Amino acid sequence: MKILITGGAGFVGSRLARSLLERGQLGGRTLERLVLADLAPAADDLRDDRRVECRVGPLLAACESLRHEDFDGVFHLASAVSGECEADFDLGLRSNLDSTRALLDALRARRTSGAPAARLVFSSSVAVFGPDPALPLPNPVADDTLPAPQTSYGTQKLVCEQLVADYTRKGFVDGRAARLMTVTVRPGRPNGAASSFFSGIIREPLAGLEAVLPVDPTVAHPVSSPRRTVEGLVAVYEASREAFGGRLALNLPALNVTVQQMLDALEAVAGPRVRARVRPERDERIAAIVAGWPRGASAGRAAGIGLLPETSFEDIVRQYIEDSAATPAALAGLA
Amino acid sequence: MKILITGGAGFVGSRLARSLLERGQLGGRTLERLVLADLAPAADDLRDDRRVECRVGPLLAACESLRHEDFDGVFHLASAVSGECEADFDLGLRSNLDSTRALLDALRARRTSGAPAARLVFSSSVAVFGPDPALPLPNPVADDTLPAPQTSYGTQKLVCEQLVADYTRKGFVDGRAARLMTVTVRPGRPNGAASSFFSGIIREPLAGLEAVLPVDPTVAHPVSSPRRTVEGLVAVYEASREAFGGRLALNLPALNVTVQQMLDALEAVAGPRVRARVRPERDERIAAIVAGWPRGASAGRAAGIGLLPETSFEDIVRQYIEDSAATPAALAGLA
Repeated sequence: MKILITGGAGFVGSRLARSLLERGQLGGRTLERLVLADLAPAADDLRDDRRVECRVGPLLAACESLRHEDFDGVFHLASAVSGECEADFDLGLRSNLDSTRALLDALRARRTSGAPAARLVFSSSVAVFGPDPALPLPNPVADDTLPAPQTSYGTQKLVCEQLVADYTRKGFVDGRAARLMTVTVRPGRPNGAASSFFSGIIREPLAGLEAVLPVDPTVAHPVSSPRRTVEGLVAVYEASREAFGGRLALNLPALNVTVQQMLDALEAVAGPRVRARVRPERDERIAAIVAGWPRGASAGRAAGIGLLPETSFEDIVRQYIEDSAATPAALAGLA
Repeated sequence: MKILITGGAGFVGSRLARSLLERGQLGGRTLERLVLADLAPAADDLRDDRRVECRVGPLLAACESLRHEDFDGVFHLASAVSGECEADFDLGLRSNLDSTRALLDALRARRTSGAPAARLVFSSSVAVFGPDPALPLPNPVADDTLPAPQTSYGTQKLVCEQLVADYTRKGFVDGRAARLMTVTVRPGRPNGAASSFFSGIIREPLAGLEAVLPVDPTVAHPVSSPRRTVEGLVAVYEASREAFGGRLALNLPALNVTVQQMLDALEAVAGPRVRARVRPERDERIAAIVAGWPRGASAGRAAGIGLLPETSFEDIVRQYIEDSAATPAALAGLA
């Protein structure tokens, strides 16, 4: 079978690609070709696999030729992120809305010319939920909580969920949308995102660096490890449409943790010296943004297809350390 | 002030245009120019008003030049209807999604070149609600009921609600979305829509014709008269943004009636001879479609801006007779 991952060189996309290559199959069919489309080339280990083909460039431009190519399945992960979409409205519309529409129309063109409907997993986000200032979010936000996005990113994700549902209802694709939780711990450098500290307060201390905590330790948030996120995407792909019990998007499982629990887990796994590298320094701007976010999420439909959240943040910290073992320099500061 | 009505030659659009011309003002400002854009020319009485300018052609093509024209306000009513969108997927995307996006981008272009944000009323629909087969609709559906559209038309309306909300949040327009209920009694001929009988069982008997009732008289549905619908659109335009208590779309007020209550009202207003022209003949296809529709709707946010539903269907029947008085031939069969 032939699979396309858009955003296939990204953080989640690369991990998904490695997972698929290691499994060697998806839904009981042998993976013969894996196309990784992204703005940047994929990592060397991926490019070295003879099943992998890398395509570098904007997705929107690539969709015209996708009309003439058969894929059994597509993981559509490519997306401009929240901060980018707020700063550049056209970029968000183009990267998140127009590209998804063009991808859907390319898959539809193949279908209407006689090919089977491609299976499509669309990566949506917990950012769809909002909140609407007049309707405080329930805790947890559930699969059927009314979305009221307050960012262009969240709006575009919600709009695409609806388009995927309608193209699926019409039989043009076999689509499903999975709402990703805040993926933690992300490797790499801190970025300007308001959510950056959720990874930073674990990653930086483990690397011997100081991390600033801009919010109160009582702040709670739904998080998921990279590994569980990838498992979730694969399970959503493999599930029967009937298993969804309806055609709306589903929440991927979340571990709902407080920042205090995250810090306690860091100390339990890596010791008090590492934990002490987290310095509280309240940032009112970030605290205000985070105050509007979901404090927790439930994932009833995901549970129905066998997906469960991690049970402790310590496991997530250990997973990060394990995943980083290939680059031990990153953990030089580990106590 | 200068106002644009897209779909300005249509059933609701024409009535809205007449109402605005008669009022002579909107939000306390004098109406100087009213542009009616539609695929067909507006009725003669509208074209005779020196304030009116008709523009005939597809909205999508007109949006490029709208980038260079200032409007104080826009009522965006133009839309392909439900049955058309199911039959012709591209038509629905073009007429409902692409045209709305192009209109939003035209208004945004004016705004970013220094003009004040235009006020925009988007006509959405009770069709956004669905139902999702796995999540039976509550009765009534409320402003904050989770939409799960099961038609391309409903999907496109919901998508546009979200885009209007995001363009508004960014300050590009001052938008609000009003979900229209099933407007009854519509004049004219029966059409292929599954909802056609909601008007037909009143209109045809009043015109001396037999009407077929394809569903059980216990079927309930949220309806609104043309007059209340137009009043609703105007009130939504004139309301302050703060009055919405949040930025989601609102339901326009509905009278939730059973078919039996509609027939009783017809008899009370026009007599048993007229009522007897309605012949029950169950149509399983139509009955199945209607069974999935909302059985009632509430409109809490609309009530907050002073909008209330009719209190009796008899008033709606009388209103239809009154509005049809100019063409008494249509009522030749009235007992």
